[in-house]
Amino acid sequence: MASAARLLLALLAAAAAVGPCAGAGRVDLWPMPASVARGAQTLLVSRDLKLSTAGSNYSDGRGILREAFQRMVAVVELDHAINGSYNGRGSPVLAGVRVVVRSPNDELNFGVDESYKLSVPATGNPLYAQIEAQTVFGALHALETFSQLCNFDFNARLIELHSAPWTIMDMPRFHYRGLLIDTSRHYLPVPVIKSVIDSMTFSKLNILHWHIVDEQSFPLQIPSYPKLWNGAYSYSERYTFDDAIDIVQYAEKRGVNVLAEIDVPGHALSWGVGYPSLWPSAICKEPLDVSNDFTFQVINGILSDFSKIFKFKFVHLGGDEVNTSCWTTTPRIKSWLIQHGMNESDAYRYFVLRTQKIAISHGYDIINWEETFNNFGDKLDRKTVVHNWLGSGVAEKVVTAGLRCIVSNQDKWYLDHLDATWEGFYMNEPLTNIHNPEQQRLVLGGEVCMWGEHIDASDIQQTIWPRAAAAAERLWTPIEKLAKDAGSVAARLARFRCLLNQRGVAAAPLAGYGRSAPSEPGSCLRQ
Amino acid sequence: MASAARLLLALLAAAAAVGPCAGAGRVDLWPMPASVARGAQTLLVSRDLKLSTAGSNYSDGRGILREAFQRMVAVVELDHAINGSYNGRGSPVLAGVRVVVRSPNDELNFGVDESYKLSVPATGNPLYAQIEAQTVFGALHALETFSQLCNFDFNARLIELHSAPWTIMDMPRFHYRGLLIDTSRHYLPVPVIKSVIDSMTFSKLNILHWHIVDEQSFPLQIPSYPKLWNGAYSYSERYTFDDAIDIVQYAEKRGVNVLAEIDVPGHALSWGVGYPSLWPSAICKEPLDVSNDFTFQVINGILSDFSKIFKFKFVHLGGDEVNTSCWTTTPRIKSWLIQHGMNESDAYRYFVLRTQKIAISHGYDIINWEETFNNFGDKLDRKTVVHNWLGSGVAEKVVTAGLRCIVSNQDKWYLDHLDATWEGFYMNEPLTNIHNPEQQRLVLGGEVCMWGEHIDASDIQQTIWPRAAAAAERLWTPIEKLAKDAGSVAARLARFRCLLNQRGVAAAPLAGYGRSAPSEPGSCLRQ
Repeated sequence: MASAARLLLALLAAAAAVGPCAGAGRVDLWPMPASVARGAQTLLVSRDLKLSTAGSNYSDGRGILREAFQRMVAVVELDHAINGSYNGRGSPVLAGVRVVVRSPNDELNFGVDESYKLSVPATGNPLYAQIEAQTVFGALHALETFSQLCNFDFNARLIELHSAPWTIMDMPRFHYRGLLIDTSRHYLPVPVIKSVIDSMTFSKLNILHWHIVDEQSFPLQIPSYPKLWNGAYSYSERYTFDDAIDIVQYAEKRGVNVLAEIDVPGHALSWGVGYPSLWPSAICKEPLDVSNDFTFQVINGILSDFSKIFKFKFVHLGGDEVNTSCWTTTPRIKSWLIQHGMNESDAYRYFVLRTQKIAISHGYDIINWEETFNNFGDKLDRKTVVHNWLGSGVAEKVVTAGLRCIVSNQDKWYLDHLDATWEGFYMNEPLTNIHNPEQQRLVLGGEVCMWGEHIDASDIQQTIWPRAAAAAERLWTPIEKLAKDAGSVAARLARFRCLLNQRGVAAAPLAGYGRSAPSEPGSCLRQ
Repeated sequence: MASAARLLLALLAAAAAVGPCAGAGRVDLWPMPASVARGAQTLLVSRDLKLSTAGSNYSDGRGILREAFQRMVAVVELDHAINGSYNGRGSPVLAGVRVVVRSPNDELNFGVDESYKLSVPATGNPLYAQIEAQTVFGALHALETFSQLCNFDFNARLIELHSAPWTIMDMPRFHYRGLLIDTSRHYLPVPVIKSVIDSMTFSKLNILHWHIVDEQSFPLQIPSYPKLWNGAYSYSERYTFDDAIDIVQYAEKRGVNVLAEIDVPGHALSWGVGYPSLWPSAICKEPLDVSNDFTFQVINGILSDFSKIFKFKFVHLGGDEVNTSCWTTTPRIKSWLIQHGMNESDAYRYFVLRTQKIAISHGYDIINWEETFNNFGDKLDRKTVVHNWLGSGVAEKVVTAGLRCIVSNQDKWYLDHLDATWEGFYMNEPLTNIHNPEQQRLVLGGEVCMWGEHIDASDIQQTIWPRAAAAAERLWTPIEKLAKDAGSVAARLARFRCLLNQRGVAAAPLAGYGRSAPSEPGSCLRQ
């Protein structure tokens, strides 16, 4: 209750401060940039805002920058009628944005330079905002930041930009800022996945971890093994191979990598619908049959097909929650274990390591859930990134062992845990107890996980937002600029939640637990 | 529980029947058309589907038909990659849709002819579907029906249309098929309102009842009284006058009328934020001051401004839940009552009737909530439509008195009642106990109400859908074609819910109460 009362006070203060010039006294950006300086001048933003790329080394052959600029203009307008007059206002008019990208290369991959500098001068004729970035993906982040500087003026019916001149220098604290979606427990239609990708860009998340398949359904077409998607829930709850290509390209054009996962040897029951020999037996269907070479042929086929679509440096091979009892209760497999001198845990390790080798043969680095590390960390390929989920304190052990780590401890960063609060999402620090800079560098970042048992197209967005945004600031903003007390960012996050709503994203109120309905009538800013 | 078990069985049967050719044995349309005949031929739908208007009397100067056609093509694709080959499939290719509209007039208003005939032949070269309609708005409904005949073929990566030839003759049972939204209890951003309008067209709802303002906030700019929107929740939770024009035009181009409401004399506290003299006193702020001519000047100003935006035949003047105690506890008003020989209920009647006259002077017919009828039905202007909400059995009384009626009985058709089930929405019959055809004609239709106390941009869509769709079929489909038992349409409604999800609408599962999360992993079709 004390915490709830503090939140209420913060939100009341936020709402009280709202007015046409409220922007002047504060920085309303989410996530907070590394460095911000501002002035006190109000600009009008031209209705016909120009994009200039003079001086850029980037040719934009795929239209990444041009399309991002158009999207930015659209979200700034928030679907308001922009039809006021520029005459007689006395404010300088911002004519355009000049974007200088130094690198001609627009291949998106892990660790790409996402830094940018955004300057909005208060004088000049014509007056242009300036974006400088090493890559187009840094420029995309700059455009998002720019969009958050703009406000609709309800009296003038124009877009205004307060507090110019602005100078913003920015770069992410972590390269890995992920969100997991799960299309096995419930199918997510393609437009829904795309809208999730769009919403990620608003808080600068950059990795969509696509947990494609699990025990319950296998929705993706795999050309090498065309019966695998017989494990889909229904005829229409599927993705063609070309749909996956389209999703990846859609994400890449927005600076979002797609990390594909197959979760083996557990969490793979649905594979056997099309190929029953992948099951230990007709009555014991999980984990995948470790004794059958066909199992690894299928994995090889999937990862070979993946390598044509998913160009991200990493592939996720799962490896969590493996109950090996089917291997010992199935006589054929039990014999195989004895013949190879393996017990169940040997076989689990054998499966994971053999699968790792296959993935590496297709050019991937590997991510595995933490049980693989907890059970045989010293045997994992050194290219392995260990994906924490069971609890806190794991990252320390992983980096001490010299492996890389991603943090998703379920008590704080599982979005399906509706009792995990946004404050908990905000305060969850991936580098807790890790002080050695070399070890710190092994923590690639973190990921919030939207597991799909109770999530479908109807409720995914308000279960993700605004809590994922709280984690996004933790992952983006320099640690010294992060709030020591989540309550002190509550009002700014509430405003960002309202902005998401204005952009059509069904972000839930801050108050209450995950995806709570508003408890009473009131301003978006106070809920 | 018995009902839940029946639903489960129906949904299991639905899921079991799903396959690429499942469409052949059933009519998967929502709402069910008046008349449907079909064959057994599968067509391929051209990737470059043409719109022909040869023979049409309608020039489409505003692009209503052209844009609707483009939207139809987009929703049919469901964002799948459509890139298969048409060669060697042996199926005829549907080259386009020919639309013949008889009336050149595209003014949308109450009672406009919405009927259409849709034929999809199985032979012809070039092969064209045929739409005939009196108005472009009938043609829009035909395009929606056509879109529901199309399926994505996951193997061929093309759009297919099963069961040709089709002949569908269709028209609505009721002219008034409404959905209420409430932007006073929570502000709804413009893109959210537009997405609600889009989703309405999928089940052929045709009236958006915009409950703009209430006690809690006054979000709309009123040029005649520019301080009224000082009663908004915050600077940004507002609509400019031009935003309202834009929303109305957006709706009209989709065949959706916008019914504007001011709810007087109660439910108007927020008006006084800008003009405190509208309050009886600073300590007793509702209902509006009946004794002050300024009150009626403001109402006149609002309705005058409304008449420039809201071209619908009707305006809604509220009139419900009026607690008149402030009128007798405020000495000034009490004196006025005595002076005019009125008691409280006289004054309530006086207020409503005077407001009706103002609305009529601006060319409107009037809708009032049922309390006005219940208290002084014989005094209401004969142009009044009585809007039922308190319970069932009201429509009978209204039409017996010779007035028109809209049905929204809260126990069945209030969407904010989360315990109101989709079965209840489906089975709620507006003509219950009304047998005289002349009296039946006085029932204009019905409306489902999405009151906003616990609804904002985060949860509106899944609280509306799929329950509003259940009512939409009740309001559209001839009574003899409606199911006698809601359970028998459960599987078809589940498929329509999945279709909404595929189109990006966050429609909730059928199972459970309003906007329940899915209870467990599973196919969309079974939930």
